[in-house]
Amino acid sequence: MHWYVVASFLTILTSSQGILTTLSQSNGAYKYDYATVPFLAEVFKLIVSSMMLWRECQASTPPKITTDWRSVRLYPIPSVIYLIHNNVQFATLTYVDTSTYQIMGNLKIVTTGILFRLFLRRKLSNLQWMAIVLLAIGTTTSQVKGCGETSCESLFSSPIQGYMLGILSACLSALAGVYTEFLMKKNNDSLYWQNIQLYTFGAMFNMAKLTTDDLRSGFENGPWWRRLFNGYSATTWLVVLNLGSTGLLVSWLMKYADNIVKVYSTSMAMLLTMLVSVYIFNFKPTLQLFLGIIICMMSLHMYFAPPTVLVDLPLTAKASPESVGEVSGDQKTTS
Amino acid sequence: MHWYVVASFLTILTSSQGILTTLSQSNGAYKYDYATVPFLAEVFKLIVSSMMLWRECQASTPPKITTDWRSVRLYPIPSVIYLIHNNVQFATLTYVDTSTYQIMGNLKIVTTGILFRLFLRRKLSNLQWMAIVLLAIGTTTSQVKGCGETSCESLFSSPIQGYMLGILSACLSALAGVYTEFLMKKNNDSLYWQNIQLYTFGAMFNMAKLTTDDLRSGFENGPWWRRLFNGYSATTWLVVLNLGSTGLLVSWLMKYADNIVKVYSTSMAMLLTMLVSVYIFNFKPTLQLFLGIIICMMSLHMYFAPPTVLVDLPLTAKASPESVGEVSGDQKTTS
Repeated sequence: MHWYVVASFLTILTSSQGILTTLSQSNGAYKYDYATVPFLAEVFKLIVSSMMLWRECQASTPPKITTDWRSVRLYPIPSVIYLIHNNVQFATLTYVDTSTYQIMGNLKIVTTGILFRLFLRRKLSNLQWMAIVLLAIGTTTSQVKGCGETSCESLFSSPIQGYMLGILSACLSALAGVYTEFLMKKNNDSLYWQNIQLYTFGAMFNMAKLTTDDLRSGFENGPWWRRLFNGYSATTWLVVLNLGSTGLLVSWLMKYADNIVKVYSTSMAMLLTMLVSVYIFNFKPTLQLFLGIIICMMSLHMYFAPPTVLVDLPLTAKASPESVGEVSGDQKTTS
Repeated sequence: MHWYVVASFLTILTSSQGILTTLSQSNGAYKYDYATVPFLAEVFKLIVSSMMLWRECQASTPPKITTDWRSVRLYPIPSVIYLIHNNVQFATLTYVDTSTYQIMGNLKIVTTGILFRLFLRRKLSNLQWMAIVLLAIGTTTSQVKGCGETSCESLFSSPIQGYMLGILSACLSALAGVYTEFLMKKNNDSLYWQNIQLYTFGAMFNMAKLTTDDLRSGFENGPWWRRLFNGYSATTWLVVLNLGSTGLLVSWLMKYADNIVKVYSTSMAMLLTMLVSVYIFNFKPTLQLFLGIIICMMSLHMYFAPPTVLVDLPLTAKASPESVGEVSGDQKTTS
């Protein structure tokens, strides 16, 4: 399977996630405990990965499975990073409003590029760096508040701690992605075995979160496993399946493509969600949404198109002698 | 003189033009007849060009001067195009508001690229086309109205005639620029002799405009030449000198650089004006202004940087054998 097919699926599913989540609300509120959704998604991913691994084990060439503790102990690390990230995110929101937080969220596109270069030692061309910055600018442009909407003066007037935490949050988010890519690529273990390790720890961390929430509320609604499916509708189940599927696609991309592909997928998904919301929820389309979409499309082309398509190569790189005449005729004007 | 020095001067002077014009107003109104400014600027350019041509004639190698009618008759054409353009502009504004008109004005960046390709047959790389579109997007982004400002719903709700006229206006503006470049480059006549022809017709068309204005008002304030300097302050004279100087720089760029360089200069000038206005006139800086500036800076780099700086060239184009190892190590990750 080509990575861009998987990336396109990821874009569509990530985009559906936002829309399904909105549709799963009743009168703007959740009838179910939203914290149960990521837990059930981890369980779904664990079941699917186990089935796939079992199928692989039936094949004539069995999959490679490393059960050494020195390898397994690395798999909770992404969950730990996400846990820290969630707390930093919570702290950030005590200093800045959600609109500023959303704008700062685009920083993670750039921090992913930087950590991708530093930790995974992947070289990017000058143009690819510009494409990454442009992608972040494009998504930010699309989020610029339109006329008449309030709370945009707050953007430049939050306390400095808010911006520092926002940057830290972007770094942690990028670190989790880059670390997962490192894990998935560090050996040629079966993708499904790697998934099982990741998701087992993921499910455990989610259970810990649900238990902590219960402890905080003094078990006033009973323990979480007793009310796990309370208020679940068909749409809620779709949200769970959708979240689980996007997770599986992200794992695949981390192993067979990379973090930058994932970042493009999810950024495009955000724009697609905004565009679809114009139709489904009758949102007013803004000029900045269209500008943002064009910027991101150009960024995509700049990053992934082969250099020969983008620039006129110097003469040494040209194969045929005819093309020389074409280039030297370049600077002439009509007369 | 290098073209980028001239282009930088043009940026600074064009940017000053907006600020000086605002400063020349008293309580938000002109005390002088603004229509006299372009006329006097033409006269200024004519005087400077005549003096420069006279100095060239004193040199040992006299300048090339073509006085053939078949050449001279082409020089009023840019003035004619500008005259039509002004009327189209006036018609456009009866259908759309000034804010929509300003946003549509960015189209002329793209139409200049297209006419530059079609009429002057200059080839642009895929990346240079993207850079031109990005420049238009960047200037548009910087102009997106901030929160709380009204009249932005009108952007998508003007009658279709307004958009058609806006596109026509962008084409005419580009055509005038491209035609001037064709004129300046069609032979190796002295730049100053070409200027004299351009500006003589320019001054004549401006006189015709002033006379028409007088006829329309029934000469109620007397003929224009009697009240030419009425209400002129030192700042007004600076506006005239500044406008004249930018005209001379544009002529130089048309002969020794090209329309795209001019478009970049004036677009950067617009952003510089907005940035300076934040300090001088206490305008509130918007997020979209910063986004627009970054987009335009990247566009500048994409258009003018040599391809070798932008992309990793294929191996055939690399000179040293050491670099081959560097490239093949590219795809490795840490382990």
